[in-house]
Amino acid sequence: MTIDLLPGERVDDLQRKGYRIIQNSQGFCFGMDAVLLSGFARIERGADCLDLGCGNGILPLLLEAKTDGRHFTGLEIQPYSVDLARRSVALNHLEDRIDIVEGDIKDASGIFGASSFDAVTANPPYMTDSHGIRNQDDAKTIARHEVLCSLEDVLRESAKVLKPGGRFFMVHRPFRLAEIISLMVRYRLEPKRMRLVYPYADREPNMVLIEGISGARPRMTVERPLVVYKAPGEYTDEIYEIYGN
Amino acid sequence: MTIDLLPGERVDDLQRKGYRIIQNSQGFCFGMDAVLLSGFARIERGADCLDLGCGNGILPLLLEAKTDGRHFTGLEIQPYSVDLARRSVALNHLEDRIDIVEGDIKDASGIFGASSFDAVTANPPYMTDSHGIRNQDDAKTIARHEVLCSLEDVLRESAKVLKPGGRFFMVHRPFRLAEIISLMVRYRLEPKRMRLVYPYADREPNMVLIEGISGARPRMTVERPLVVYKAPGEYTDEIYEIYGN
Repeated sequence: MTIDLLPGERVDDLQRKGYRIIQNSQGFCFGMDAVLLSGFARIERGADCLDLGCGNGILPLLLEAKTDGRHFTGLEIQPYSVDLARRSVALNHLEDRIDIVEGDIKDASGIFGASSFDAVTANPPYMTDSHGIRNQDDAKTIARHEVLCSLEDVLRESAKVLKPGGRFFMVHRPFRLAEIISLMVRYRLEPKRMRLVYPYADREPNMVLIEGISGARPRMTVERPLVVYKAPGEYTDEIYEIYGN
Repeated sequence: MTIDLLPGERVDDLQRKGYRIIQNSQGFCFGMDAVLLSGFARIERGADCLDLGCGNGILPLLLEAKTDGRHFTGLEIQPYSVDLARRSVALNHLEDRIDIVEGDIKDASGIFGASSFDAVTANPPYMTDSHGIRNQDDAKTIARHEVLCSLEDVLRESAKVLKPGGRFFMVHRPFRLAEIISLMVRYRLEPKRMRLVYPYADREPNMVLIEGISGARPRMTVERPLVVYKAPGEYTDEIYEIYGN
């Protein structure tokens, strides 16, 4: 298949089933957080899945490759990211498995209807504070700061579009954990499983992976630490497994 | 000083300033959770401190030894534990520094008044489920199960008795974390600092230490893991430091 690349674009190998992804070096490229979320999410066989704010489509592509989910939808508000994601879906011949929808997370339940998914994933902007950011329209800014949607928007819409008992999986920053958990409880995405990601075994965690189940009872598991590096530049075995399998 | 011990009682050395504590081998003896909480709590110079459900007085004794707090009050509902704690206070000649008050956590704000402490500590019962427990009056049962007070009682009363900006420190179990955080947020004991205690570096955590600040803004620090054992029976250096210093 011929790939038409625009200026700044490149094709990266996803190390999964031969899948490739188109990214723009000047834009927001996927990071370890997306890969760790794809390893944390437990997508059941036959599940209909939604990724809120899918960017260049990394989560739907990885989850299609790794899980037995039936269908994957990515919702994305930025037209150029939608175009990138759609071209990657076509590049991998996954048009019947992955849909990329252009739209606003804040309207997700209006777009898809209530109780329409078995699983929702989200890798939302981490930073609340967008004061003083020069270019609020920049793709990286929109991906990192809550310019276009807030954590509460993501959780409220996730709760609406999930079926009862449906699963919500998110990666975020530990400094937001009190907001994350209290809002998940408020919207009845009961936190059931959490894993903290530590850059080194003796450092503060810099990511948190969390699973909620719609309407479940309180009782959660905090899993063993996920440690990224055993030495500078040297990943732990578990990180290699998440990337490679 | 002559110590009058009742049947089953013993005197243990606290490894701090020569302090000793009277415990009853058939009752609830303090565990590592109390010691870790005493190491986690940041008590400021001159602070007036309350320990909710002080049992045999371990927290007030350790905090008096370790910190520059001005005065320590322990509230305890079980008369025999109150008696044990008062005898330990007398044994260490700390009557002007530590008061043990007999009363119910659910009435703490009625007993002490609103906004009356700079810091509150709590090592409450961890287990919600008291179904099928034969002896609900047993001291160990009351210390471990929410027979006489719930997590919500502890947080509500802590919020009331703390001054604005006052600090709340608790040790609990990770499986209750969603309830802990969502109730702390609801009662405006904003979670600001959390540390998970892992028995081994590659296991699930079995304790959580959490600090809330009354009326603070959301933004929390999750600290590096606190690992208990480096090998079976062999504590990590940090555990030795918390016990020994």
